[in-house]
Amino acid sequence: MPALMTAAVWHGARDLRCLAYPRPEPGPGMVLIRNRRVGICGSDLHYHEHGYCAAFVPDRPFVLGHELAGEVAALGEGVTGVRPGERVTVNPARSCRECEDCRGGRPNLCRRTIMLGSASTRPPTDGAMAEFVCVRADQCHALPAALDDGLGALIEPLAVALHAIRRAGGVAGRRTLIVGGGTIGLLVALTARAYGAPVVVVTDVVAARRTRARELGADAALDPHAPDLAEQARTLAGDGFDVVLEASGARAALRQAFDLVRPGGTLVQIGTLGTEDVPLPANQLMVREINYVGSMRYGPVFDEAIRLAASGRIHLRPLISAVFPLAECAAAMAAAGDKESGLKVQLTL
Amino acid sequence: MPALMTAAVWHGARDLRCLAYPRPEPGPGMVLIRNRRVGICGSDLHYHEHGYCAAFVPDRPFVLGHELAGEVAALGEGVTGVRPGERVTVNPARSCRECEDCRGGRPNLCRRTIMLGSASTRPPTDGAMAEFVCVRADQCHALPAALDDGLGALIEPLAVALHAIRRAGGVAGRRTLIVGGGTIGLLVALTARAYGAPVVVVTDVVAARRTRARELGADAALDPHAPDLAEQARTLAGDGFDVVLEASGARAALRQAFDLVRPGGTLVQIGTLGTEDVPLPANQLMVREINYVGSMRYGPVFDEAIRLAASGRIHLRPLISAVFPLAECAAAMAAAGDKESGLKVQLTL
Amino acid sequence: MPALMTAAVWHGARDLRCLAYPRPEPGPGMVLIRNRRVGICGSDLHYHEHGYCAAFVPDRPFVLGHELAGEVAALGEGVTGVRPGERVTVNPARSCRECEDCRGGRPNLCRRTIMLGSASTRPPTDGAMAEFVCVRADQCHALPAALDDGLGALIEPLAVALHAIRRAGGVAGRRTLIVGGGTIGLLVALTARAYGAPVVVVTDVVAARRTRARELGADAALDPHAPDLAEQARTLAGDGFDVVLEASGARAALRQAFDLVRPGGTLVQIGTLGTEDVPLPANQLMVREINYVGSMRYGPVFDEAIRLAASGRIHLRPLISAVFPLAECAAAMAAAGDKESGLKVQLTL
Amino acid sequence: MPALMTAAVWHGARDLRCLAYPRPEPGPGMVLIRNRRVGICGSDLHYHEHGYCAAFVPDRPFVLGHELAGEVAALGEGVTGVRPGERVTVNPARSCRECEDCRGGRPNLCRRTIMLGSASTRPPTDGAMAEFVCVRADQCHALPAALDDGLGALIEPLAVALHAIRRAGGVAGRRTLIVGGGTIGLLVALTARAYGAPVVVVTDVVAARRTRARELGADAALDPHAPDLAEQARTLAGDGFDVVLEASGARAALRQAFDLVRPGGTLVQIGTLGTEDVPLPANQLMVREINYVGSMRYGPVFDEAIRLAASGRIHLRPLISAVFPLAECAAAMAAAGDKESGLKVQLTL
Repeated sequence: MPALMTAAVWHGARDLRCLAYPRPEPGPGMVLIRNRRVGICGSDLHYHEHGYCAAFVPDRPFVLGHELAGEVAALGEGVTGVRPGERVTVNPARSCRECEDCRGGRPNLCRRTIMLGSASTRPPTDGAMAEFVCVRADQCHALPAALDDGLGALIEPLAVALHAIRRAGGVAGRRTLIVGGGTIGLLVALTARAYGAPVVVVTDVVAARRTRARELGADAALDPHAPDLAEQARTLAGDGFDVVLEASGARAALRQAFDLVRPGGTLVQIGTLGTEDVPLPANQLMVREINYVGSMRYGPVFDEAIRLAASGRIHLRPLISAVFPLAECAAAMAAAGDKESGLKVQLTL
Repeated sequence: MPALMTAAVWHGARDLRCLAYPRPEPGPGMVLIRNRRVGICGSDLHYHEHGYCAAFVPDRPFVLGHELAGEVAALGEGVTGVRPGERVTVNPARSCRECEDCRGGRPNLCRRTIMLGSASTRPPTDGAMAEFVCVRADQCHALPAALDDGLGALIEPLAVALHAIRRAGGVAGRRTLIVGGGTIGLLVALTARAYGAPVVVVTDVVAARRTRARELGADAALDPHAPDLAEQARTLAGDGFDVVLEASGARAALRQAFDLVRPGGTLVQIGTLGTEDVPLPANQLMVREINYVGSMRYGPVFDEAIRLAASGRIHLRPLISAVFPLAECAAAMAAAGDKESGLKVQLTL
Repeated sequence: MPALMTAAVWHGARDLRCLAYPRPEPGPGMVLIRNRRVGICGSDLHYHEHGYCAAFVPDRPFVLGHELAGEVAALGEGVTGVRPGERVTVNPARSCRECEDCRGGRPNLCRRTIMLGSASTRPPTDGAMAEFVCVRADQCHALPAALDDGLGALIEPLAVALHAIRRAGGVAGRRTLIVGGGTIGLLVALTARAYGAPVVVVTDVVAARRTRARELGADAALDPHAPDLAEQARTLAGDGFDVVLEASGARAALRQAFDLVRPGGTLVQIGTLGTEDVPLPANQLMVREINYVGSMRYGPVFDEAIRLAASGRIHLRPLISAVFPLAECAAAMAAAGDKESGLKVQLTL
Repeated sequence: MPALMTAAVWHGARDLRCLAYPRPEPGPGMVLIRNRRVGICGSDLHYHEHGYCAAFVPDRPFVLGHELAGEVAALGEGVTGVRPGERVTVNPARSCRECEDCRGGRPNLCRRTIMLGSASTRPPTDGAMAEFVCVRADQCHALPAALDDGLGALIEPLAVALHAIRRAGGVAGRRTLIVGGGTIGLLVALTARAYGAPVVVVTDVVAARRTRARELGADAALDPHAPDLAEQARTLAGDGFDVVLEASGARAALRQAFDLVRPGGTLVQIGTLGTEDVPLPANQLMVREINYVGSMRYGPVFDEAIRLAASGRIHLRPLISAVFPLAECAAAMAAAGDKESGLKVQLTL
């Protein structure tokens, strides 16, 4: 009989149960992590609120959570690069390391990726909202002393932001617009500022989010429905933003982004849209030589994310809006779902 | 009274007149070219057939033509880099050289560009279907002996192809699909082959064009309506083409291109589409990290185009489907408009 | 008889004379600038102290100076993009705009460049240490209100720093070492910090410069002769700096830089070295895949430099160590030559 | 007692013995390959002729060889991506997959790499000049039917050439010089031609090699000692080659390469040099903005190399100058060491 541990186990829409669950064992090449802090992502929330996420419908109960900081508890056979007791954060995407995309340094394109806390596999893969989780050794990234567990569990969403900026070709010297002021949008805005964007602007339909964006360091935060938006944009960025990062997943916002990006500029799609096609100005893209590029999760940017977070060049702590004990996971989900006040909500163990 | 010359002057839809027209004089920094060979572009044809092109409606008669080879006939004041008698081809786009895009090496984004043989200015700017044309000195590119006038007048459309491949980030080692087997599509296909694409495939709805594409060197030419298209594509390029270049301007073809490009691949928009938005799979672009990028005319690739054409690595001559004397410009237009047999039709002077 | 103006005219080593000099007239395409502030560059100082600079030996007296802020005083024929009275800084390098490098967006490689205040041409080209100077219209860059004349005259050296960082491929997320804490080195350090380097370290043999580097924002400033340098570097940057920018022009410093750069990292040569070859570890460069790249003056980065300076993300004013009236140009040169206290010394008019 | 196999075992300088040797067993994640064809590399030859290679001195007998084609004979535990009986070639460098460089897609910088047939580890790692060899599953690359064993065993050196061209930033449209006409130099030349270099020139001091380079497709092959070399270069490439790839490892040749590369051009170091510093024109590198970059083995280019070889765009077979049975390995080494006639010598099993 396997050892048991406490875990927040998804059982369906609005049915998250904190209960005893089999504790995983690290096989060859794997590492057992004792989780200390776990963040709630939009995808966790979607499983919780709707019972599925994107195209993924769980076929049995499973443990949510993929943003984590913890401590190495045990090593499987053959692991050498990680030490027991080490504080780590984790890249939750375990790619196959054998396909052309993995070899080529783009593991986020790997079709055999196994993702923590996700129903993209069948059965679902258990995540980190539990006392323990198992990952492959190369998924672990040591946390320096400068990063406590709360910040450590923010590395994964920070990696999303960093990867998007890489996909943009960098923002140094480039006027930058972020569409959508949620957690990812704000992380992108903070990173864009730290990485040299001379102008950082956020748009969001929610006034409270615009206020927060300004407080956290955006040069301006605009209402996308403002009748004088084009004029405001012109004042801030002349004939358009050099880089626009779409982090809202809203169809209208995406369409508007095409009108706000400069000729020769780059528009990065971070936000998840529905599967239905979106009418887009393809001729304008051609004439103005716009680059419209997708950004999926993250490539190998965890080391960079840790260095950035540890450098003090960026202040991530204000993004943590609340911390709950694991036992109150359902309340934590409710807090995370509040569009006005909720940013990053974390569970502590 | 100005000297006169013979010119093919647009007067409206299907009203092209070969008549006496004022001969231009080269002002300071300008060069007078005696034209020898002038190609007919799709935009010339559109002015001729429909009376306008894209958003540009001529407000008075003007001389068409912007693909040319000729001889330097006279120099304006202060010109030093060009010699009288020199054989040249011409970059027909005179950018301002003072704006940020011009300075930054992206003159095709310049909003003050003056284009030969185009109604994008008011009044329209006279082009090269005439005995003489005036251009700024830096628009001239010397033709080596290896390139006769026919090939010299192909440098401009070849530049379109080269620029598109640059926008793709190169094709060396990348399986490449060209959507549309017209003159530009074929130039892209030939260049892709010369530049190292291990697989070059063309799609076109016209069977005669597919045959020609194969004859000219495409590894395969596919019917986009074939029921087994996906299977054929898989045989040729595994899980998708690394690069897709859209040179048809057809909405359905563009939509199909998104299904044929590989995760992480690049889709270049060369073809002109209508101004109406096109429904596109934005979520697929995100998840699969597709790059969708516009390619507008050409950046500074004329020197490269001349070197490529002169190297013998690419055989352009078969693309010239007919040559007419200037006086038969209307017949030349008719030949250029034949989708089955017409490729590049040129006028000789 | 030409109108006269006051100018600081080089007559030989340590023979700088403030006297009446012919006032230039703007020809076609040119602009007359009334200079307000002019910085002293290392090359100005070299002409002053040694009578020549690099390979350039003046064959007659000429006006020094190429870092300037001023006001448009008059326009030559045909100038449209610049307005009289406009406050501007100037790109002092007038490239030909007709060669392949100019067309290709790399004007700093143009072999026909005419440089303000330089003996690289024969006769020398007069510079900006005078009441007026003439430049081609596209050399002018409008100064926003946020930049006063002192900061405006710093745009040119800031452009040197920006270009070097572009040549490095950017510094965002990359641990960065600057070799040499003079004005250019410090500008590079400040820019590296603003552009996202998580660690910015300066080395200099002069203790006062190290202190200043730390005050201005370097994370550390090291003595290159320190016996524990390798250990200090390891503490700051693990197994090496991702980017090293050589801004000292010292042979020993360059050699050391190869030992401090990380495998796969980039070493940018900014500093001017003598013409004698320098023994370098070519095998180490191969095995560790180091990129060693030259950075010459600047490509088209003035617009970016102005935006960065105006953004408030970087504090340039502390770099201005003294301001002298034009009449005291010789004293200004002396101040500029003081390695301990002299940073950027400027002349005001 | 382990099973035995026949192997060519290095015992010291000029002491290569074909004898019975323990047959390896595939552990977890590993694959046993039955070797069919093995090429002799310059490093194999160096171990054979001198008893060491670069800094690596074997501390016990071991099996040489790392260029191979073979058949999957057995799978270790947990291997899924490879099938028994599959024909494969092998990337002989087993990187750790856990360090920042491995994660970042640059495994050739990994400091924990284990290389087949090399004394870079202690004890040395057995290579492929034997009936069997063991590699990790991700080191295997399936060979298509278009590639027989001889061509399959050329994929590894072709990967060296491809990687060098990647490090150059591509050669499409760029006049290219290869310094050194040995096997690697010729592979680079062939690839440069296939990848779009409009001019491909080889230099070599050996006349027979120059003749062969011309026969194989170089546009010209020059004697580096020719008094009119500069003039010949100018005729072929104007003011310099856009890309120069140094594949000779000769100090004088490297120095000369700096004079043959164009301003703004790239010089790639492929050849191994001694550990002594080489005097290089660092000031010229700065003024002319040369990129001097190292190319070490190969990044993830095996899939691309296989596609290129299988595409028929490049003819590799003439590079195989002789094939010997394994038992005649000593004679094969002698043939490989002949600078006049020896190109790629292979062993067949």
